[in-house]
Amino acid sequence: MEKDIQIRELYRNTDAYADKEVLIRGWVRTNRSSNKFGFIELNDGSFFKSVQIVYEQDGIENFDKIAKAPIAAALMVRGTLVRTPEAKQPFEIKAKEVVIEAGADADYPLQKKRHSLEFLREIAHLRPRSNTFSAVFRVRSLVAYAIHQFFQEQNFVYVHTPIVTGSDCEGAGEMFRITTLDMENPPRTEDGKIDYSQDFFGKETSLTVSGQLEAETFALAFRNVYTFGPTFRAENSNTARHASEFWMIEPEVAFADLTDNMDLAEAMIKYIIHYVLENAPEEMEFFNSFVDKGLIDRLTNIISNDFARISYTEAVDLLLQSGKEFQYPVEWGIDLQTEHERYITEEIFKKPVFVTDYPKEIKAFYMRLNDDNKTVAACDLLVPGVGEIIGGSQREERYDVLVARMKELGLKEEDYWWYMDLRKYGGVKHAGYGLGFERIIMYVTGMGNIRDVLPFPRTPKTAEF
Amino acid sequence: MEKDIQIRELYRNTDAYADKEVLIRGWVRTNRSSNKFGFIELNDGSFFKSVQIVYEQDGIENFDKIAKAPIAAALMVRGTLVRTPEAKQPFEIKAKEVVIEAGADADYPLQKKRHSLEFLREIAHLRPRSNTFSAVFRVRSLVAYAIHQFFQEQNFVYVHTPIVTGSDCEGAGEMFRITTLDMENPPRTEDGKIDYSQDFFGKETSLTVSGQLEAETFALAFRNVYTFGPTFRAENSNTARHASEFWMIEPEVAFADLTDNMDLAEAMIKYIIHYVLENAPEEMEFFNSFVDKGLIDRLTNIISNDFARISYTEAVDLLLQSGKEFQYPVEWGIDLQTEHERYITEEIFKKPVFVTDYPKEIKAFYMRLNDDNKTVAACDLLVPGVGEIIGGSQREERYDVLVARMKELGLKEEDYWWYMDLRKYGGVKHAGYGLGFERIIMYVTGMGNIRDVLPFPRTPKTAEF
Repeated sequence: MEKDIQIRELYRNTDAYADKEVLIRGWVRTNRSSNKFGFIELNDGSFFKSVQIVYEQDGIENFDKIAKAPIAAALMVRGTLVRTPEAKQPFEIKAKEVVIEAGADADYPLQKKRHSLEFLREIAHLRPRSNTFSAVFRVRSLVAYAIHQFFQEQNFVYVHTPIVTGSDCEGAGEMFRITTLDMENPPRTEDGKIDYSQDFFGKETSLTVSGQLEAETFALAFRNVYTFGPTFRAENSNTARHASEFWMIEPEVAFADLTDNMDLAEAMIKYIIHYVLENAPEEMEFFNSFVDKGLIDRLTNIISNDFARISYTEAVDLLLQSGKEFQYPVEWGIDLQTEHERYITEEIFKKPVFVTDYPKEIKAFYMRLNDDNKTVAACDLLVPGVGEIIGGSQREERYDVLVARMKELGLKEEDYWWYMDLRKYGGVKHAGYGLGFERIIMYVTGMGNIRDVLPFPRTPKTAEF
Repeated sequence: MEKDIQIRELYRNTDAYADKEVLIRGWVRTNRSSNKFGFIELNDGSFFKSVQIVYEQDGIENFDKIAKAPIAAALMVRGTLVRTPEAKQPFEIKAKEVVIEAGADADYPLQKKRHSLEFLREIAHLRPRSNTFSAVFRVRSLVAYAIHQFFQEQNFVYVHTPIVTGSDCEGAGEMFRITTLDMENPPRTEDGKIDYSQDFFGKETSLTVSGQLEAETFALAFRNVYTFGPTFRAENSNTARHASEFWMIEPEVAFADLTDNMDLAEAMIKYIIHYVLENAPEEMEFFNSFVDKGLIDRLTNIISNDFARISYTEAVDLLLQSGKEFQYPVEWGIDLQTEHERYITEEIFKKPVFVTDYPKEIKAFYMRLNDDNKTVAACDLLVPGVGEIIGGSQREERYDVLVARMKELGLKEEDYWWYMDLRKYGGVKHAGYGLGFERIIMYVTGMGNIRDVLPFPRTPKTAEF
């Protein structure tokens, strides 16, 4: 096909194209005309903003046809780029030739008007063409890349931990079963139970809830590693913050303690924010104006200030002292609820807060026991508007302490033979955390529902597209 | 913890540390000593090579203890970096202080000797500590990053297409079912069938075999997009080239035809090769010496030459003319087998070859019908040593032609309502391809078995770790 120029390029290097002929392609966002001339907003997806095409009865031979070009039709436009210093947009294209490369039926659902986010979810295959979702999904892409860049620049090894897993290693909630057995009539053993030895993997398998344990094996070889992949929770919770399929980033670092862990997490969050402000200024301006007023100031503020760091015990004291009445009463030992987390980060500190050293009873078996024998070296990061965005810990590297803890919890050592091996052979101090990818997207865009930052969200009773 | 310097840094910027005191941490790879002095190869995972530590009876206070430090033990070493121009390694560390940070049991399975790849698969949690797998998994990480960089630098949007899917859209082979129903005693409808409306997603769901159809929805919004995620095939094939869980990259580009598609794929492969040669010279040297002699020459060659491009019809003619006897006889219309593909790329062209325009009968429904009505605008990339590494096509953007083709194949339009919508609303020419991530890793490392380029491979009857 004849080479065209992307609209992003015209915006970023306008000088190089001013008063020159350019060839562009894109889709009609709006089209209005009189009988003498018309204006088309053309968007090619390469850039948040559209380009204004001016076409005239005297300028193109198929004026009448173009004047009827519907929204969503695809055009090729050849014309001259002209600066428009007095207008809203910095330049426009005076068309010499306009060709319709693809039409659009009149029942196109994304006509020029405000649509509810709920309606747009039902047309998830078209919503990236709207301003809001064009911005959301470009930012999502940029944040993903920023994360890779952040870790790769520091020589971290990206590891693809498995999605199919043979055991509920983390014990982190309900899992989805994977099977190729005939559900109607599965093979059974002599005692009538389902014979999973005949299943595809020769045993019961599920979708992973976390790649952490496998990531630890790599951290104890490469020192600095991270995962970035999909994870799954079969929890029947229909909230604005939970999805059944979501992406997670799990860095794991050997020769590191809890402070190193928090330093890394804080640097990562700041890097991400800096990256999107730098690389998606138009999208961030849009969120700031139409989705979450004050967003850019808030994010800018975060880059230049230290995150707060308090212990769980201090957090409980602060909540008790606040005099605020919570739905779930506060006392030492409880798992902090969203209302508590948000109060800490939004009302008390008004910025991101690490809460550390939680009671061992409410945390996972692999977290390192503190010397008080009551708390573990965990660190959760709470941020305003979203709540918990990161959960992390120093891992229990002491074989005997880990075995004792597993016994307390009824976990069988043999199910974790390879995980225990890591404690036998050079099992140094190490730490890591999990970042919920959709949570950070919500945080940097101001979008309030996880369904609106996932391309095709999977939630209870929903797996469309 | 007291800050140390990574061994990579010592190798890359030796000048800055020569004759200075440094603090490093790492794991013992070898340790040999007399009663006066000893040598430890210390590796911290940050770099392919280890550092030689020299420790002396007179130099450190715990000489006897360190002399017994076993393989895999973790050490902290403080000492002076001394250049060693006559030795194999460019420098060594003269130890002043050595602390054992973690011991290692004597039954450590990775003792200093040659191990078979098969044995190492059984200890997949430890094999990244071996030279071979240290090299494989760092290269894997770098190739992943190179792919992101390649696309992001060209303004492609990274899209996470869903893993859980409600239908076998591509019809590309057997799929894994996902369920939360009680397998022993599933709910049934009145007529005795399993009641999937009570399953987690309210219907039958599976693990995705491809994100292409969803990626097309994004390409027709953002123009240039790519996926990079896990995909699954429940095929019971135990070969060196197939895994049940593998990663795939699927770029999709609007306003593009088959030639644009091949240009993009060729540029991507060259970019990847260039990136690993540049960023993993030690690892590539290792593969070249111990895994696949001539690898670096071959890869260097590929960067500087055009890929061949022939039609399927030409490929069949060449195979017939070759006089070679194949296990599967060649005639126009057959699906090319691995033996044919490898003959074309390894014997005839001795370089990567795109084969285009396959008979429609052996290709997927969404590929664009050529004017001959017999072939479709497909392009597969074959490479020496691996065979097919990329499968791509221009997509059928013409609504009526697509509907007719789906009817021929017995596909129901209503199952693809959203995919058909793309043809109704600005459905321009577009094209894309899928790159098997493990295949490219095998190609650039020379590793012969897909199980040895996946961190924790999943294959029939195998889902360990």
